[in-house]
Amino acid sequence: MSEAGERLGRMHIVSLAGGIGGARFLRGLRATAPDAQITVIGNTGDDITLFGLRVCPDLDTVMYTLGGGIDEEQGWGRAKESHVVKEELAAYGVEPQWFGLGDRDFATHIVRSQMLEAGYPLSQITEALCTRWQPGVRLLPMTDDRCETHVVIDDERGRRAVHFQEWWVRMRASVPAESIALVGADTAKPAPGVLEAIEQADVVILPPSNPVVSIGTILQIPGIRAAIAAKTVVGVSPIIGGAPVRGMADACLTAIGVETSAQAVLDLYGSDLIDGWLVSPEDAGVALEGVRVIARPILMHDTVAAADIARTALDLAGELAG
Amino acid sequence: MSEAGERLGRMHIVSLAGGIGGARFLRGLRATAPDAQITVIGNTGDDITLFGLRVCPDLDTVMYTLGGGIDEEQGWGRAKESHVVKEELAAYGVEPQWFGLGDRDFATHIVRSQMLEAGYPLSQITEALCTRWQPGVRLLPMTDDRCETHVVIDDERGRRAVHFQEWWVRMRASVPAESIALVGADTAKPAPGVLEAIEQADVVILPPSNPVVSIGTILQIPGIRAAIAAKTVVGVSPIIGGAPVRGMADACLTAIGVETSAQAVLDLYGSDLIDGWLVSPEDAGVALEGVRVIARPILMHDTVAAADIARTALDLAGELAG
Repeated sequence: MSEAGERLGRMHIVSLAGGIGGARFLRGLRATAPDAQITVIGNTGDDITLFGLRVCPDLDTVMYTLGGGIDEEQGWGRAKESHVVKEELAAYGVEPQWFGLGDRDFATHIVRSQMLEAGYPLSQITEALCTRWQPGVRLLPMTDDRCETHVVIDDERGRRAVHFQEWWVRMRASVPAESIALVGADTAKPAPGVLEAIEQADVVILPPSNPVVSIGTILQIPGIRAAIAAKTVVGVSPIIGGAPVRGMADACLTAIGVETSAQAVLDLYGSDLIDGWLVSPEDAGVALEGVRVIARPILMHDTVAAADIARTALDLAGELAG
Repeated sequence: MSEAGERLGRMHIVSLAGGIGGARFLRGLRATAPDAQITVIGNTGDDITLFGLRVCPDLDTVMYTLGGGIDEEQGWGRAKESHVVKEELAAYGVEPQWFGLGDRDFATHIVRSQMLEAGYPLSQITEALCTRWQPGVRLLPMTDDRCETHVVIDDERGRRAVHFQEWWVRMRASVPAESIALVGADTAKPAPGVLEAIEQADVVILPPSNPVVSIGTILQIPGIRAAIAAKTVVGVSPIIGGAPVRGMADACLTAIGVETSAQAVLDLYGSDLIDGWLVSPEDAGVALEGVRVIARPILMHDTVAAADIARTALDLAGELAG
């Protein structure tokens, strides 16, 4: 094993993660550092109770993606999925019908809901689900407390707060968000293991997940941001040349008054948090005092590309940690 | 319309019902008296919570059978059913795996469980589910209270009580039942509408459902037996020539010390309850003081045969009420 390989093998890596983008980055990270201990702190602000079942879209996307069960084309949900249950629920006239839940996916939510009802915390449930999926990382929810992202909108039905999923999935973020709030954040505690993992980490990675409703959400759980800020932190810009790498991050950034640019997201995170920042070559001019900015291709075409980006981030972290 | 037809059209009929046998009889009853007001009091002693979802096998069998959604061959569950959710739950290692729940069926249990969680009683939930299925009868659970049949067995794991479904479905009643008890019966109340429907009934029909764990269960809910006994009651024997018409009623009868015969079941119900009793020609010798016994073919080959039997029962009731 090379010296670099040995170093990676001993490494404790913590990565935050939202959904699709974060999961794909993590697949690259795991590929480039297969022997490292990787702890993933997943966003649960998108979680929603549908049909009485607790759905954790981001945790599941990470779990399915790293566990080989993801619908690769779609980026979320299960491969070879069917939709019988959803069709039947619609036949009963039960709402909502705008959220896409497949039959395989339903089983995950049924198991999770049953365990929640039995009193298990989400962190233990996630661990139990992962015994099947073997994602090769330790996947922790940011918190075991119920903590949901709500969005204030003003449309023909008036000014009101809706669950993030209603805005994101049903409205496809087409109605401008006046504000975005993580309801329950004030009293939420990091899930068991979260602060310990950060403390033991050699590096904390912020993948190109949504800086507002994914990474930003995780950072709002009291104690997490400060713990991360004390570490060597390398982020990958979710914005390339003024547009999101994928998804609708621009709608979220606009809602909080932040420009959709690699510079603005770096400024948002701040130099107290970030030590290294990976941007795309067209954003080479991005700069912030106290932050080492590196310009490299950061588009995750495939797992090889994601692994290259992850390797660059780890190498940069290694340099920064000196 | 004939005089008999007019009489049937004005009739208020109450029928008790278990699962498959009861549902098929009811299809015949509805066919022979399409304009009658039929209220079905369904057994809920078989109900069970699986994977955190409330399953009501008998209510659903009646609803699906009369609503055209039943798996005709199997007699229970949905037609054109798939089993993706069940396979996925098994992949998670979640128990039990011996209960057959299909994807379409899961949707029913999800809706029911969500409504229970929201505080609706089972009777209102059943009514809501029936707005989709339009069974052509008013389907009422015997009670809104939780009331489950348990069976005491003694096998290699020792003497213990198991849920009726575990004995019936998992063990296929192969282990002798020492006793059968309806847990919660003492304090259960008839569901809203049950006693009123019986009071207004011109006739109460006991279809060839299981006399112990279906009809017997319904009769155990305080108030129901006495209300029915005050009416003209015609029963159809579930036993033909010493064997159950279908299912494993013999195992249940044996458990309560009753012989598997048309005579013994009539004796079990008693002349205080029953006014008319339909038996198969080979059981023509059956007799009980105060009960009019009629011997006719009572095997329900198809809906036409079931309709003939139902018509015979209604005609007998008419004579008895005479």
